[in-house]
Amino acid sequence: MEPAVHPDVANLAFLLGRWAGEGEGEWPRGESFRYGEEMTFEHAGEPYLQYSQRSWSPDDEGPIHFERGFLRPGGPGRVELVLAHPLGIAEVAEGTIQGQLIEVSATAVALTTTASPVTELRRRIEVRDGTLSYELRMAMRDIELTSHVWARLTRV
Amino acid sequence: MEPAVHPDVANLAFLLGRWAGEGEGEWPRGESFRYGEEMTFEHAGEPYLQYSQRSWSPDDEGPIHFERGFLRPGGPGRVELVLAHPLGIAEVAEGTIQGQLIEVSATAVALTTTASPVTELRRRIEVRDGTLSYELRMAMRDIELTSHVWARLTRV
Repeated sequence: MEPAVHPDVANLAFLLGRWAGEGEGEWPRGESFRYGEEMTFEHAGEPYLQYSQRSWSPDDEGPIHFERGFLRPGGPGRVELVLAHPLGIAEVAEGTIQGQLIEVSATAVALTTTASPVTELRRRIEVRDGTLSYELRMAMRDIELTSHVWARLTRV
Repeated sequence: MEPAVHPDVANLAFLLGRWAGEGEGEWPRGESFRYGEEMTFEHAGEPYLQYSQRSWSPDDEGPIHFERGFLRPGGPGRVELVLAHPLGIAEVAEGTIQGQLIEVSATAVALTTTASPVTELRRRIEVRDGTLSYELRMAMRDIELTSHVWARLTRV
């Protein structure tokens, strides 16, 4: 039997399910690019959601990026995100939830020795009229905060 | 078509697949406990492995813990792990790989505001004679490094 959504994450339940669509991105001194993407938000009856993302090239469907982590309540109107990236980055982010809009900024970006020097990550996720849209802004050592990727996904 | 394992993670390929079994754990001032567990190591032809773990109560199969992250090569004989925990912890760990034995220590443990005050994590993973055994040692503020959980899993 499916467990009920934990009351502590009832305000995040609008994210639950599998979403897919297309996104685009750019990065200083690089070409802009398009990608296919899938995001899944699941729960196990516990006070957090499991989050999983993958993106792929629209040309050959080769993998571009993965993200794996958890969304947690952070007190009234607050949300916490912990995330692992295959690039050698572990991210802790915190911020606000207002209705179906989540905005978080990384409070810690921990890197492995061989990781890219990411210094800052800010995410905006919104569900409106059945569409999940998000934007990720990122900074690296020597590259100031810039809009890196954004996408629009629908439930599949 | 399944992509080939990326040569940079060929030395981690012994982990690929789904493993399940039982573990036990203890924690200062708490009772010892047993749990069921599943670990999955996947790849997408890229120079990292995707890692996913879940554990559950042997009594009611209720969820106990999840881990989601990535294993990366860290140069000759070295391995890197980035991991998200639902408890509000993001972990970066680095260490050694010798044959089918991996030993890593967290170089960063980043916490959300509401997370448990974990300060240190050390992992040992070994595959021998078809059995994956691991041990996790953990420290928290005011609790010194102690063996927390260990398990033996077989391929399923």
